[in-house]
This record gives sequence, C-alpha cells and structure tokens, in this order.
Amino acid sequence: MTERTDTTEVLEALRGAVGEAFVASGDDINPDLTHDECLTSDAVVPLAVVRPASTAEVADVMRIASRHGVPVTARGSGTGLSGAAIPRTDGILVAFDRMSAVLEIDTDNHTATIQPGLTLDVFDEALAPLGLVYPVFPGEYSASLGGNVNTNAGGMRAVKYGVTRHHVLGLELVLADGTVMRTGGKYVKSSTGYDLTQLVIGSEGTLALVTEVTVKLQPRLPHAATVLAPFATLDGVTAAVPRVVDSGIGPRVLEYIDLLTMSAMTASSGLELGIPDDIRNQALAYLVVVLESAHPDRLDADVEALGTQLAELGAMDVYVLPEAAAGQIIELRERAFWLAKANGANDVVDTVVPRATIPRFMAKVSAIAEETGSWIAGCGHAGDGNVHLGIFQADPATRSQVLRAIFEAAVDVGGTISGEHGLGHAKRPYFLDLEDPAKVELMRRVKAAFDPDGILNPGVIF
Amino acid sequence: MTERTDTTEVLEALRGAVGEAFVASGDDINPDLTHDECLTSDAVVPLAVVRPASTAEVADVMRIASRHGVPVTARGSGTGLSGAAIPRTDGILVAFDRMSAVLEIDTDNHTATIQPGLTLDVFDEALAPLGLVYPVFPGEYSASLGGNVNTNAGGMRAVKYGVTRHHVLGLELVLADGTVMRTGGKYVKSSTGYDLTQLVIGSEGTLALVTEVTVKLQPRLPHAATVLAPFATLDGVTAAVPRVVDSGIGPRVLEYIDLLTMSAMTASSGLELGIPDDIRNQALAYLVVVLESAHPDRLDADVEALGTQLAELGAMDVYVLPEAAAGQIIELRERAFWLAKANGANDVVDTVVPRATIPRFMAKVSAIAEETGSWIAGCGHAGDGNVHLGIFQADPATRSQVLRAIFEAAVDVGGTISGEHGLGHAKRPYFLDLEDPAKVELMRRVKAAFDPDGILNPGVIF
Repeated sequence: MTERTDTTEVLEALRGAVGEAFVASGDDINPDLTHDECLTSDAVVPLAVVRPASTAEVADVMRIASRHGVPVTARGSGTGLSGAAIPRTDGILVAFDRMSAVLEIDTDNHTATIQPGLTLDVFDEALAPLGLVYPVFPGEYSASLGGNVNTNAGGMRAVKYGVTRHHVLGLELVLADGTVMRTGGKYVKSSTGYDLTQLVIGSEGTLALVTEVTVKLQPRLPHAATVLAPFATLDGVTAAVPRVVDSGIGPRVLEYIDLLTMSAMTASSGLELGIPDDIRNQALAYLVVVLESAHPDRLDADVEALGTQLAELGAMDVYVLPEAAAGQIIELRERAFWLAKANGANDVVDTVVPRATIPRFMAKVSAIAEETGSWIAGCGHAGDGNVHLGIFQADPATRSQVLRAIFEAAVDVGGTISGEHGLGHAKRPYFLDLEDPAKVELMRRVKAAFDPDGILNPGVIF
Repeated sequence: MTERTDTTEVLEALRGAVGEAFVASGDDINPDLTHDECLTSDAVVPLAVVRPASTAEVADVMRIASRHGVPVTARGSGTGLSGAAIPRTDGILVAFDRMSAVLEIDTDNHTATIQPGLTLDVFDEALAPLGLVYPVFPGEYSASLGGNVNTNAGGMRAVKYGVTRHHVLGLELVLADGTVMRTGGKYVKSSTGYDLTQLVIGSEGTLALVTEVTVKLQPRLPHAATVLAPFATLDGVTAAVPRVVDSGIGPRVLEYIDLLTMSAMTASSGLELGIPDDIRNQALAYLVVVLESAHPDRLDADVEALGTQLAELGAMDVYVLPEAAAGQIIELRERAFWLAKANGANDVVDTVVPRATIPRFMAKVSAIAEETGSWIAGCGHAGDGNVHLGIFQADPATRSQVLRAIFEAAVDVGGTISGEHGLGHAKRPYFLDLEDPAKVELMRRVKAAFDPDGILNPGVIF
C-alpha cells in the first residue's frame, strides 16, 4: 500500500511543503525537540523536524508521510511526562510552535479559537483583561493547548471545572491521509452523530493532528482565598473532602499534600506557613482548599464557614494563608514534579482512583514501597482522586515492578493508570498488561478507523 | 458470516435467554413499544420484544442476534423524538424496563450507578433526600437514563451544568457480539486510552447496548428564584444573555420564549404572569432566568442585581415570579413539545447554533416560514443556542424542504442539526445530506469498529 522510499525524497517533499527553513534533519535538529519531560524515556533524533505554519501545510506533510509510510509524531511544548511527543528515528516530528495564535476570542458566545502551539500562559494573558478564563490549570503553564487536548489535561481546578474534555467544543483535525476535518463548534449541546471531538481528546496524537481548538470560556471570578488545614491522618483529609463538596461551597481547588512532600516544598522554598511546631510535628497530611467568588463579602463568609466545618471534621487547625504564601503554596504544589525530579525521583505517576478510596490506595502504596525498598512521596488532587507519586527506586526492574503494583492497586480500587499525563511510550506496557484485552482490541479497531496504516504516533498507547 | 435462519429458531433462543414470559412476538407485542414520540415516524411491529433482567441476559440476546444476523434496537422509555427507538420489522427490540434499578448512590465519591431503564423522576426522588442532584433536566422526566445517554440529553440547565456527556463517568456495555465491557469509573479524570464512554454517549444505540451507567452527582442547592423579563425584540434577549453570564451569577436556566409560544403556553394553562397589557402587547420575546444558591440572602441579592442588569440591558420590565407561577412556567416550557403536538405541529426540531447567532438564525427561519407558507413557533435554551421549533406544515414534501432549509441555515451560522433529540431515523437524511462526507465516512468506520455486521440499530444515524 505504502512503501519506504529514500530519505532524500521525503526531505525534499517536506521542504516543498513547509519551506526549506522549516525542515531540519540530522545535526540541524534542535536537541530540545528530541525528548519531552518523561523521566524514563530516551531522546530520539527523528528523520526530520517540520514546523508548519498553517493547516494546509500540515495536510501536505501528512500526505507526504502517508504516501511514504513514514511515522508522524506531533509536538506542542514538549512538557509531557509520558513520552508521547518523542519521535521515531524513522519518523517526522511535527512541531507546532509556528501555529500558536489566538485566532478569536468571542465574548458573546464565550468561546476562544486557538492554534495548538499556543501556550497556557500566553492564552491566559489574552483572556485576563476581558474578565474571562479558560479554567483548566494543569501545573505547567508553558504547556501547549494542543498538548493539553491530546492528554486531556486536568490539574488542580478539575474538582470545580472538570478537565480539558469538558471545555473543548470543537477541533480542526488533519487525518493520517491529509484530509482536513472540522468537528463540533461554538455550542455545548450536540446529538448529531458520533462526537469525534471527544474521541480525539486524550488520544495522544494517535488518531489525528489537531490544528485548531475551540474552547469554552468562563467568567473570571476576581476574589480567591486559600485555606490550609493540617490533619493527623490522610484518612482525615479524604473523609473531609466529600463533606466540603456537599456544602455547596464549590471549591476551586481541593488538594492534599503528604508530610514528605510538604517538607520538601517548604525546605526548597523557605515557604513559611506559620504552623506551630507542635501541630507540624503531628500532622501527617495537609488539605489545601481554594475558594473563589465574584463577591469579596461572600468569600469571607465562605472562608469562615469552611474553617468551622474543617475544625468539626477533625482538622488540627485551620489557616487562611496570606496572599503571598497562598500563591507560593499553589505554585510549589504545581511544581511538585520539578521538585521530585530535583530530589532524584526516578519516575512519576498520576494514577486516578475514586477519591474516597485514596487512603486504601495509599496504604497499598506504602506496602509496595516497603516491600520493594522504594521511597514514594505523594500529593494529589484530593477532590478528584488523582494521586501524583514520585517514585524513588533506581533499579529499573524493581521500579517496573513497583509501577505495575501501583497501577494494579489503582485498578483494584476502581481507578485507572493515568489521570492526566497519558500513557505515551512510558506507561503503555502497564496499560496493555492491566487493561481488559477486549477493550484494547476495540480501541485498536477505532485507531484503525482513523489511521489504517498506523503512521500516527506508532508505539504510543498501543 | 452470519445468516438469517427462521424466526422460530430465533424466538426459541430468545425465550431460552430471558425466559418465556419476557419475549413477545406478533399480536402479543404491546403497541406502545412499536413507536417513540417522533411525530413523523410510523410504528413498526418487530420480530420480537425482549425484556432482559440482567447484563448477562442482554449479552445472551446479543449473541443470538449476532449469530442470526438479526438487527437490534434498544428502548428506554420511548420518549425520544427522532425515532431512534423504533425497531425494524425483522429485528429485536430490547426493552429495558426490567433493568431500572438504582444500584448504588455513593455519597463519598458523589456518584450513582444505575440501570438504563431507570427514569429521571424516580432517580431524582432517590437523590433528593440525600441533598444531591443529577443536574441534567431534559423536559421529559419519564425519560430513561439509558435513553438520555444514547441521545446525550441536555435540557434547560445545560447553561450551568452542561449535558449528559459532562456527567457520565462510566458505562457497562454489551457489544454487538455479546462481549461485556466496562468503561470509565468513579473518577472525572482519565488519560488512559480512548474515551469509549464519551464515544457511546449520543450514539443512539448504534455502537453498543448500555447496561449500566455511573454518573456524577452535585450538591442540591436548596434555594431558587425565577425571573421573567419581556423584551421588545428577540435580539434584545440574546444580546442580554452573554452579559448575564459575564456577571458570574451562574444562572441555572436561561431560556427564551417567543411571543407565539408564550401565548400558547398561557392560553393552554391559564397561567397568570401579572404582566400589564401594554407591555404584553409590545413584547416579542421573553427571557426566563432561574438562579439558585445555597444561601437565601445571596439569592435575594443576586435576583436584585440581575433585575438591575436586565433593566439596563433593555428589558421592558422584570418580574420575580411567585413560586407557583415559577414552577408552572418552567413546567410549561418543558411541555412545549406536547403543546406543539396538541396544537397540531407536524414536526419539531432542536437545532443548535452559537447562541449569539440566534437572531440571525431566527431571521432566516422566519424567511423560510414565509417562503413556504409554513407556521413556525419557537422557544429555546438561549444560554446555549439550542433552538426548539414547532413546524406547522402539513404537506410532507414542503415540510422536508422547510427542515432542510432550517438545518442548512443552522449549519451556515456555525451550528448543527440536533442539540439533544438525536438524528434517529427522522433526521438522518438531512444529516447525510448536509454533513461533511469525509466525516460521515469516518463515523461509519468507527461504527464498523464496534459493530462490523451492522446489527445495532441499522438505519439510525447512517
């Protein structure tokens, strides 16, 4: 059907498609583009890096790749943690840095249409003056929207706003054969055939290349307050969470931070939380709650009600953080991956479990750590059961055993392998090992419906 | 691959699978099960109606259907408006009335797991005492959750809470060949392979039979108020909507009702809204806003702020409705379909457009009505651009022309054919006519990935 021809021909065709200046090969390839932030994947120099400037150019690139049977990997900012943006030696890396515009902000329909290379921080700067927000805040703001779509990024505000798939209304896609297609639009409701938008979200570049994204925007609530509550046990934190949700207070953030992670966070930053020694010495876990409101007086009343409620729910104390410390603790929590990396973590996982099972799951994790002589530190999105763990275990074989055991424990309590990082290359073996084979087989058939020759990100997910 | 054998053999096998008492054929079939509420589809008596009591029985039914190549149509409550639950003469209708249990309400994870035959009203009765709510309120509460999943039902609260797909976390499915599969779980975040849950939502019984649904629950806010604002033009209503959203007040409902529909509603019910004649005579459209809160004092303050804002935005007056009238207007709005039907509407459509384009779209609709000598009355979910129209045009050929023109106008302004009713048999021809052929072809391949022999609801969508 397709046939490998020589490299020169492919490179020549790519240069014709996107322009000589935007095709790199061999030593001309920027080493930054040969990897993402996955701790366990090696860098790979692809056959070519192309930097298209338009959907038409992306379509040309796909037609060339399809004709020559060359694998294609998409890359946003390269901040992924599972290796899904790592190219193949024999493949093309499509870098979207030249397609990073905000195409439209529609303040009547409350939507924005953007290109996939746009980063979250630049997008937020464009929205803030309009009093609007795209409320998906994964920890890394240099991440691209295209990458966010492909991993179904979540982050700390998911407990209130949900994840990427709850905010993407429509996509422009380039299929494996170069067909350009639009899905969805500026509307929330649709019952008009299959929802291809939702199918592509979280597909890690294996179904189509995303060339345009239409997202829903929210009013930006101007007032926020951060409450920190130490608890004697992790159990105490997770038991409190559903009751805070029940109250209807609608927290923006509900995070837990374990003792080890909190110590590392404060030690690395000099963050001073004003917690007396006797409480700090007894606290095994911390709950961080961020509230937001359009009205400062309501925010104050909510903070007070929350404080009373948390005390009743067994918090050792409740601190309303000053603005600087509040900003710092959230930023440190968002940088937990970098902290884990700096401290020598060998891998990170972002397992998700039903939130009420976090203590049961973490007990299993502790047992796994002990049995294997590993050190495992964690924090997570307590509101939605998304547990981030730094795995400190240098031996690859033991580490692989640890990861398998952790994922198995997550599945046992009703969870799944990845909440927001994706499978990429790195977590794929565990997925294939632990997932229902009939489901994997069905997903393979769906993949083949989009990409019959398997040129889009082969080796990722499957 | 598969081969039709005689009817007797199929019926015998079905009786063995679900029990003699739960298989009906010929004259024993309840006529109610031969149609849904679609105004333009004829009733069809299937080969057999089966009423399974368990997932295992559904799987047995699918294995029999698959072996004999017999089409299968799923039926919840039969309240659909597009004919997706109408069986085939040579097919099996699987009625889910015996699988209608609330299997679990999990107050710590804020989820419920239910069977597909459960109706919305019974579900709501189970949730209310717990202070929880499943916030998807399509107009018809005798509708089943299974039907809601299959049409991606929306309704009036979508402007705040989104639609069915935003609340379904996991499914149990029976595939065409009888394979039982679980997708998702009690978690909001996942980046672990393709989201099969989302793919099945809105697929109108063409990909799999849904045998269990896990949904997310919300705290039930106890206080609500309904505000009615007459406007001199529909333009005034739709221009006000984004500004109300901007305020951060978070309305539960944002509906518009046109003059004709409002007249029909009040005339049919004796509803007295207390609007002076001079205003009523000049109002061409009404905005209905429902606010909700956990705090009665905040609700009062929000109502006042909203009143001020609506007056500034050009409302002719603003009425806070007494509780009885508030309940009645929402109920009448929800019963708009039945009112249209009672008044002799020949068809109804539920087109969705970007909400700011409603006036442009409605101007085209008026032109279509005039050109074709039809009468078209409307109301809709102003917050999310979902426009419900009753079409009064007795001549089938002209009516078909009217529908095609309406859908084309919707697509022209960036919308799509159906917001929440689905395509079924009734709207399929327009879909196949107006949708991008490459997209339809891709959807067909996805369908084939699930159901290679095409036995699940053939004739629906495609």
